[in-house]
Amino acid sequence: MAAAAPPPPPTPAPEPNMVPPLKSPTSHPIFSRIRLSTPSDVPFIHKLIHQMAVFEQLTHLFSATESNLSSTLFTSPPFKSFTVFLLEISRSPFPATTSPDFTPFLKTHYFDLPIQDPESYNFTPDMLNDVVVAGFVLFFPNYSSFLAKPGFYIEDIFVREPYRRKGFGSMLLSAVAKQAVKMGYGRVEWVVLDWNVNAIKFYEQMGAQILQEWRVCRLTGDALEAFDQVNMEF
Amino acid sequence: MAAAAPPPPPTPAPEPNMVPPLKSPTSHPIFSRIRLSTPSDVPFIHKLIHQMAVFEQLTHLFSATESNLSSTLFTSPPFKSFTVFLLEISRSPFPATTSPDFTPFLKTHYFDLPIQDPESYNFTPDMLNDVVVAGFVLFFPNYSSFLAKPGFYIEDIFVREPYRRKGFGSMLLSAVAKQAVKMGYGRVEWVVLDWNVNAIKFYEQMGAQILQEWRVCRLTGDALEAFDQVNMEF
Repeated sequence: MAAAAPPPPPTPAPEPNMVPPLKSPTSHPIFSRIRLSTPSDVPFIHKLIHQMAVFEQLTHLFSATESNLSSTLFTSPPFKSFTVFLLEISRSPFPATTSPDFTPFLKTHYFDLPIQDPESYNFTPDMLNDVVVAGFVLFFPNYSSFLAKPGFYIEDIFVREPYRRKGFGSMLLSAVAKQAVKMGYGRVEWVVLDWNVNAIKFYEQMGAQILQEWRVCRLTGDALEAFDQVNMEF
Repeated sequence: MAAAAPPPPPTPAPEPNMVPPLKSPTSHPIFSRIRLSTPSDVPFIHKLIHQMAVFEQLTHLFSATESNLSSTLFTSPPFKSFTVFLLEISRSPFPATTSPDFTPFLKTHYFDLPIQDPESYNFTPDMLNDVVVAGFVLFFPNYSSFLAKPGFYIEDIFVREPYRRKGFGSMLLSAVAKQAVKMGYGRVEWVVLDWNVNAIKFYEQMGAQILQEWRVCRLTGDALEAFDQVNMEF
């Protein structure tokens, strides 16, 4: 059909700041879902964390195993401790579901080009459909003593390469922020590398303050283990 | 007796780097205890947090109430979520006690001068003895996905003015680090202001790395509340 059709008229040059149409005849609909992860997602979470370590050129710091993830995540009810939201993508709509813990966010996207994902076979929870895991956010409660209120701290937010620059990172961050508001929490916090100007701009556009004066202090490895020998009682 | 005794011989000038004697005839013994806080400690925790806000010149950010602290702390078993260690000081030895959750750290100190604490009446848990609350540390679990291990994040560490520069801050930090090692955790982290060179030097001496490149991002107040209106489903 498309081959027999006459060539389309030349596309007019877009006016500056013109809002693109939500849906055009040539666009490719994609369906996304953000849902709570479960223990059966650990193999995907493990691969996502490893991809993040590769992306950040920090594989020398990566020692997570599926077994360690299984024994340390999912030990508390959702949001009470370490919590993971998964971002899934499909060419078919997701069924609307509800849950007392968290009702998944569903969204339809229209892109001008289909998304090519050469690694989709590694990130498919269910071989019976075309759902692909595309990203995740790992977060847990923190606390502000000045507010006497909990908040959320985002440890990781990651979207796989084929799905970047499409608004999915913003969706994952928004999902955590919305959950914080729902729970009456006072803050959502995370850290960013000071040279990552694109990320900083993106976070500022989302309403975040960048606290320039604070530095993270970390005690780990042998320096931490040494405290086992510190004699506190004499 | 003291008035009738002959004047002591002149004290020899200390040699550089000479280790002071653990106990000298003129020293004042002080006993300290670090223990888990309980709900009945909330009035002291509230006053300590307020003093910290005054010290940091951040009282405009302080909105904690005893009621809010009571409803948000002590909601989980110790170390599973927000946890507070209290530092107490007494002129009498503390009884040795044990607990399945946490056995308090007891220590004896010898100072050349007695500690003057004009506010002790505000920080006395039990009017029947001379125990005074001198400081606290508030911490909770965080998570390293690269290690697939929990850690502890220290939100606050504070010692009241009369008790500073005597090693109590180091004891509070050590207590958290020892607990982290005991639980097999991978990291202890906190933040410091970049201009607080004395604190940075102290933390480095304790074995901490200062991560110079990371910046804290914070979403709070109206900017956070706005996410309640973000439409995630269409």
